[in-house]
This record gives sequence, structure tokens and C-alpha cells, in this order.
Amino acid sequence: MVELSRVEALDLLGTVQLGRVAFTDQALPAIRPVNHLVVEGDIIVRTHGGSALLGRALLSEVVAYEADEIDPVTRTGWSVLVTGTATRVADAAELARYQGLLTPWIEAEMGQVVRIRPEIVSGYRLVRKSVSGVPSP
Amino acid sequence: MVELSRVEALDLLGTVQLGRVAFTDQALPAIRPVNHLVVEGDIIVRTHGGSALLGRALLSEVVAYEADEIDPVTRTGWSVLVTGTATRVADAAELARYQGLLTPWIEAEMGQVVRIRPEIVSGYRLVRKSVSGVPSP
Repeated sequence: MVELSRVEALDLLGTVQLGRVAFTDQALPAIRPVNHLVVEGDIIVRTHGGSALLGRALLSEVVAYEADEIDPVTRTGWSVLVTGTATRVADAAELARYQGLLTPWIEAEMGQVVRIRPEIVSGYRLVRKSVSGVPSP
Repeated sequence: MVELSRVEALDLLGTVQLGRVAFTDQALPAIRPVNHLVVEGDIIVRTHGGSALLGRALLSEVVAYEADEIDPVTRTGWSVLVTGTATRVADAAELARYQGLLTPWIEAEMGQVVRIRPEIVSGYRLVRKSVSGVPSP
């Protein structure tokens, strides 16, 4: 398990489309898979008007975000964890820009955009164990 | 987006090894990728003695659990969401059984086992859109 720097972690996050956002909803932990973009170091997610995530964003609450690429066969890969404040993107030009860049995966009204500004960023790579000091192939 | 029944959702969860647990840690949302087993309808996770997850389990707190298999190219697959109470497995025989069944992915002391008893289970499949009523191939 090798730790990643903030820059490495955000770069890796930008190489995948799928992540999971976790937040507190009515005093209970909640988690949702979403698709994202990383734009200038921020995580951009589309959502619909009645979503619990949008509710959190309207209150500028802290959420957690996670993405990974882990191969269950080789048990190698990486995981990135972000904690940051979610806010609704209200500016019309920004909204149009992100709506153009990020296509929702499900057929639903997904007219809202939430920005997560990373505060704490961590991550690691899972690498193969070397046996007796000999690196794995 | 087609909703899954509780039974279908837990069955799918049992077909994968990797999931993400979300919980509240020091009043902030936290999320961690973990590997799991589904045993008799419960989610079983190994962890280490100092983990935030174990801390939640010692308090029998509610956590959220998510697993998915979504193909970013075809945008099809499934996602399962569980909310349930986490507790530490304290019984020595149970502990030994789960430690035998579940191998940690990382090299670390992972002597503790947490059981998540699903209370709310939901899930969906992402299926391809039919065009003009004609099913996709």
C-alpha cells in the first residue's frame, strides 16, 4: 500500500468517470454512485432537483468522495478519498459549461450541478508484495 | 434504470468482493473501499483494531454500504445500496470462521471483523435505452 500525493490522487480521479459520494442525510450516512469530472481540481457532479446531494450542496455541507480502480484478481490498483464542501453551481455560464462536459448516465432530469471543492485528499496504490526482496514481475 | 428487489440486490452484492462503506467520523462523512463477503444476508468486512469503522461498530452505529459493477463504455450494470447497523464480531468461533473466509487485500493487521446487518436495501440495474420501442440488441 503506497500513499499518493494530493496531485497524484486528483490526477487519478480525473482518469475515471465513476465515483461514489457519501454524505449525511437525515442524520444517517448515505452513499451514491455518480459520474464526475475533475475540472481545475474540483469534482463536478450532475444531479437532479430533488436529490439529497443537492440538499447538502444548498447548505454547503461537507461530503466525502471516493473513486478507485482495483483489480479483484491481482488485487492491485488505486483508491482516492476526498473530503470537501459541496456547493450548487448557480452561475448560468458555468452550469451550461458543465452540462456540456458531463453527460448523465441515467435518463432523468439532471439539470443541477454540484461542485465538490477538495479539502482533504488522500489515496493509495495497492502494489504487489515483493517476495524475499525480489520485486514481483 | 430498473429497480432491484432486496433479494436480487443482496445476491448481486455477493457476486463481487469490493464495496465501499460510508459512515460518520467525528461529525464528518467518511468513505472507505473494503472487501466483503455476504453471509446469510449480512455483510462481513475485515478491519484493523484502530479503524474508524471499528469505532462505529463498537457503538453499533448505522453505516451505508455500496457496491456496483458499471461499465463506463456501455453505461450498463448495477448498483446496490445498503443501510444497516455495524457491530463488531466478538464471538471467537465466528471470528475464526470469517477470518478463514475473507482474506484482507492489504498487508496489515486486520484481526477485527465487522458485521453490517442490512436494514434498508435498494439497488438498480442500468439497462440500455430502447429506441422507438425497439429493444436494443
